[in-house]
Amino acid sequence: MAKAKVFVTLKEGILDPQGQTVENALKNLGYNNVSNLRIGKYITLDIEGDNTKKELEEMSHKLLANPIIEDYQIEIEG
Amino acid sequence: MAKAKVFVTLKEGILDPQGQTVENALKNLGYNNVSNLRIGKYITLDIEGDNTKKELEEMSHKLLANPIIEDYQIEIEG
Repeated sequence: MAKAKVFVTLKEGILDPQGQTVENALKNLGYNNVSNLRIGKYITLDIEGDNTKKELEEMSHKLLANPIIEDYQIEIEG
Repeated sequence: MAKAKVFVTLKEGILDPQGQTVENALKNLGYNNVSNLRIGKYITLDIEGDNTKKELEEMSHKLLANPIIEDYQIEIEG
């Protein structure tokens, strides 16, 4: 059994209103040194089998991310 | 200017209905080898200054995460 992480991020150029709102809230708290804040998804899961990398690519493309507007990055640990 | 990442995850024992739904959807697609799927937030930002680690801890505790039900982990790159 392997532990896997999938990071899903909005592609560059896609607006991130949630990130912008959080960045503005941080500035209102006095953190004016923050910029370019963006919010993605951090998905962790356990996966069994011998073909985990390929399957995780498929899952990410089909369901975990929207490949039109999002990129994903997969990490598999032992 | 440093690039920082903040990973926000639900604490162990806190139910994750969104993660459960995605796990069920993967199983419906035939990926029965997946378990324990959980969805957190992956926040990226740029930050200036000399006190970034401490400030990111404060931001995470005050705003980025809800410390009652969520943990966070901070990574700062160069």
